[in-house]
Amino acid sequence: MSASREIEDLIELMARLPGLGPRSARRAVLHLIRKRGALLAPLAQAMQQVADSARECLNCGNIGTSDICDICASEKRATGELCVVEDVSDLWAMERAGVFKGRYHVLGGTLSALDAVGPEDLRIPRLVERIGTEGITEVILALNATVDGQTTAHYIADQLQGRVRLTSLAQGVPIGGELDYLDDGTISAALRARREL
Amino acid sequence: MSASREIEDLIELMARLPGLGPRSARRAVLHLIRKRGALLAPLAQAMQQVADSARECLNCGNIGTSDICDICASEKRATGELCVVEDVSDLWAMERAGVFKGRYHVLGGTLSALDAVGPEDLRIPRLVERIGTEGITEVILALNATVDGQTTAHYIADQLQGRVRLTSLAQGVPIGGELDYLDDGTISAALRARREL
Repeated sequence: MSASREIEDLIELMARLPGLGPRSARRAVLHLIRKRGALLAPLAQAMQQVADSARECLNCGNIGTSDICDICASEKRATGELCVVEDVSDLWAMERAGVFKGRYHVLGGTLSALDAVGPEDLRIPRLVERIGTEGITEVILALNATVDGQTTAHYIADQLQGRVRLTSLAQGVPIGGELDYLDDGTISAALRARREL
Repeated sequence: MSASREIEDLIELMARLPGLGPRSARRAVLHLIRKRGALLAPLAQAMQQVADSARECLNCGNIGTSDICDICASEKRATGELCVVEDVSDLWAMERAGVFKGRYHVLGGTLSALDAVGPEDLRIPRLVERIGTEGITEVILALNATVDGQTTAHYIADQLQGRVRLTSLAQGVPIGGELDYLDDGTISAALRARREL
């Protein structure tokens, strides 16, 4: 490549982002250089700010810029409902939906015998602790509908049984979903959980 | 979204990169925050450096970190061959192939009646100037095989006719290409340009 050392370094770093390979990283860097005033400089500053300030919430594991995230800090969100998610991206997805008004607990992964991930590697002890101290009345398990996700949900349910109301997200036909395109597992889950009209 | 202002700003800026949408920008930012020491901070610095130093070569239009790019500055590349390309990305592609040892001239686009791009909007006057001052003996037109690219090639050929040897990249079957998957234009170009074995 004939670009200067600095530009090649930038391309190499950009290529490490998920969703970008070497080719798209080059395209992105060229685009950035063309818009260096309007995009590259602000992006560099935004990254530096986030690098300096981003941290995990000590309470729930959400990512924010203070030791306690905005959701944990907000009294309005102390509804007694606690939504347990695997990952920060799941928390963000729930927040985009904008219907849940309680607080979250981010596990930071799922239990996995294969990868030797046990309860103490996740934020499960902290979850059990929060049930007692934060006046939680309902724990909503919003784990992914994968084998590891469901295993983790079972484990957590075992730990909390009898201490709190336990629910999980409904499984069924997604909004806009066509039966013909759904897998058998989803159809049978939706049939089992059918509702009166 | 429940992330802090700084993180949301970063996601919004990342989503403006080519190849990233809002969803992949969020994924990329989460990945960056998880690797803030190893990736986010170095990336922020690399971007700031490039933002501060990147500029177009005054001679050929390549992007580098000095007023005259490394290729134009290198005496070794003064072979008398000048490769004319549309864009910096094309120059980089040629350099990756690693076979051309001369210098480049980046037009910065193609002539286009529709978009009102004339010769003075491209680096064509500068190209004509370079032929005289740099002892160029051959101009290789490496423009894209599109209508605009070929129109531009014709225009440049008209301008330089008789002053210098003019060539263009060969058209034909790409290496690894299967005839069955090639378009008719490529096959007929390859047949017209067939070579003695």
